[in-house]
Amino acid sequence: MQTRVGKTNSHKTFFFNCLLCNYSYETPMPYFISEELPKLVDVEPYKLERSFKNGNIKFYNNYGIKGLQFRKSVGKVEAGSMICFGDKIEIIRGFPKIRRTLMLYPSLEIHFNNEVAVEEKMNGYNVRIALINNKIVAFTRGGFVCPYTTKKAPEIMDMSTFFIDHPELVICGEMVGSENPYVTHHYREIGKLGFRIFDLREKGSNKALPVQEKVQILDSYSLPRVNFFGILKIDEAPERIFELVLQLGKDDREGVVIKDPKMEIEPIKYTSSQAHNGELEYAFTYPFDFGRSFFFSRVIREGFQAYELNETEDEIKNRAHKLGESILHPMINTIKDIAEENPASEDIVIHVDDLKEAEIFVRHLRDLGVVATVHSFEEGKAIIRRVHQSTTDRISNFLRGGLY
Amino acid sequence: MQTRVGKTNSHKTFFFNCLLCNYSYETPMPYFISEELPKLVDVEPYKLERSFKNGNIKFYNNYGIKGLQFRKSVGKVEAGSMICFGDKIEIIRGFPKIRRTLMLYPSLEIHFNNEVAVEEKMNGYNVRIALINNKIVAFTRGGFVCPYTTKKAPEIMDMSTFFIDHPELVICGEMVGSENPYVTHHYREIGKLGFRIFDLREKGSNKALPVQEKVQILDSYSLPRVNFFGILKIDEAPERIFELVLQLGKDDREGVVIKDPKMEIEPIKYTSSQAHNGELEYAFTYPFDFGRSFFFSRVIREGFQAYELNETEDEIKNRAHKLGESILHPMINTIKDIAEENPASEDIVIHVDDLKEAEIFVRHLRDLGVVATVHSFEEGKAIIRRVHQSTTDRISNFLRGGLY
Repeated sequence: MQTRVGKTNSHKTFFFNCLLCNYSYETPMPYFISEELPKLVDVEPYKLERSFKNGNIKFYNNYGIKGLQFRKSVGKVEAGSMICFGDKIEIIRGFPKIRRTLMLYPSLEIHFNNEVAVEEKMNGYNVRIALINNKIVAFTRGGFVCPYTTKKAPEIMDMSTFFIDHPELVICGEMVGSENPYVTHHYREIGKLGFRIFDLREKGSNKALPVQEKVQILDSYSLPRVNFFGILKIDEAPERIFELVLQLGKDDREGVVIKDPKMEIEPIKYTSSQAHNGELEYAFTYPFDFGRSFFFSRVIREGFQAYELNETEDEIKNRAHKLGESILHPMINTIKDIAEENPASEDIVIHVDDLKEAEIFVRHLRDLGVVATVHSFEEGKAIIRRVHQSTTDRISNFLRGGLY
Repeated sequence: MQTRVGKTNSHKTFFFNCLLCNYSYETPMPYFISEELPKLVDVEPYKLERSFKNGNIKFYNNYGIKGLQFRKSVGKVEAGSMICFGDKIEIIRGFPKIRRTLMLYPSLEIHFNNEVAVEEKMNGYNVRIALINNKIVAFTRGGFVCPYTTKKAPEIMDMSTFFIDHPELVICGEMVGSENPYVTHHYREIGKLGFRIFDLREKGSNKALPVQEKVQILDSYSLPRVNFFGILKIDEAPERIFELVLQLGKDDREGVVIKDPKMEIEPIKYTSSQAHNGELEYAFTYPFDFGRSFFFSRVIREGFQAYELNETEDEIKNRAHKLGESILHPMINTIKDIAEENPASEDIVIHVDDLKEAEIFVRHLRDLGVVATVHSFEEGKAIIRRVHQSTTDRISNFLRGGLY
């Protein structure tokens, strides 16, 4: 089979050609969406048509990948899903949103069966890597091809044998480390840039391999995976997970993802107080860009965690003080910076071959809605400056006497 | 002149009768809104028609007052404005929103002229009291007649002579004290219930009397007013206001309103750290009802106040700790309460003649969108229980293991 997208009188058209029997057809894109796509993703045609009209399903053409990108979920098809048109149609489903528990007991007992598998949740950015048209491509959570990750991931880990054996699997993992363009966090075992895999999922269906099977496969290909803390009996799980999360927190690590070992039930996440505060610190460094949306849920998590741990008054006070500091200190520092005419910005380090590669990455960031420029490039190291405009503008205005 | 509202074929109709010349007319309400109201309030007809259609201008008929209520602002006519139809048309304009400065310097200098008048901002609920159809009526901020305030205000202060002399003025003030149905706060000089006036404004135009003239008039009628801290030169104002606000904060008082002595420029407010924390404590007692909307602006105020006061690291840390405690402690207490099957509720005390009066007040609260019931009534004291349903429902759900 061969597929491609072309144009007829400025309308996008979808071509299909069967290499076996030489049958071929050509269809306008709206027709493909209402007639062919429903069969491919098992969603009612009217929902897909509506999403296409609303711009929630968009034609995508970048970095050699042509396809349809799901900006929002449609039926059971997750946001971030990509229908890729290459030699054949390949469907990379979006990574499912993982819900959170605020009370390990009783939610684990209600949600899971006899046992749970516990893995580390890492603080980086979610990436899906798949073989598209026989090339290894990395997609961001939103379904954009990330040129940087597409280049870097194969340098970090050798996926070639894995993909020869398992061309129908998607590697879902976290790009982590202190020098990555999205979410930086220091892990002593990782350093600047690393990758940790948490799921192997089937193209098309998004079905995930059972936890232990996944661990075995990854280990057999020497592919790096997130820490697997074992399978726990459901009645001992809350206590053991608390011990784990408290320890992870002390090491400034994020938390855990709790999974059905068979991966038939959706996973749940639970995070450390340190992670909540770390995110608040970041959010309140740029309060008018992130503060409002970040704040509330982190505070709620802290409240329930303190309650479930049955903390003493002193422990609660200590938690409250850290919460307050995570909010107020970064904000005051940013006010001071802006008063000294420094815009609220953060510098992202990426390692690239040349200036052009850095510029391509900046264009990609702009596609994602991020304002950024190449600040410098020297000896393979590019500094990308990301400006947080709302924070800069609003704080400057208040400092000049603007009213709230 | 006589005016009234009646019905013709189920359509509301407006009647007008001039007692002088006996001229009268009758007009359907939509016609009145597009033809007569624009002249009365000096707003373009299409804006008023649109607001009437959207339900932002609504026909109001309660507690003996018929009129048009502005649920949202239209042109320069503030939200909460009421066009009252009695023996004549009387327009009680909404109380203007007072904007806030985050930086006393330079905003006062930019906003005002040579001098500013400083008055105390009190923590209670904003009420406008006017003579409508020769009766003294109290309106809430939103333009609802408040039956409780309408009854209580004349018991607290004698406005009869004032309104004989000044029927065209509106008394704008704050109902304050530890036993009031909306916002309770203890003031040692007030106790259970008191009233403090901050503005005298003209019906129709909403023009406010100059500060000193207002003070003189109120004092001459022995009407209680908010504390007036004097007129300050603009260049010394920020420092003096900081001293004032820090002292007010220590006394657990809210802050100040800074005014143009002539009342030709809109006033500005500035509040104490204690007020911010007090409001956060209340909001996070009912986090899912108030937390989200209350939080952000209070935190921003704290950040700028710390910055403008050039606080030391220890002072900032202390401020951060208080901030964290104001958020986390009340929330954890509410989680504990709900875990013990007590819904998130607060009890309001009002003093009424009989149970029926309490029930009327509860109906009024429901008109305002507040869920409340009469919990008890004994010897003139009614306890109204207000349930915060979102907080109760969501926290119960999480405690039962519901996912976030």
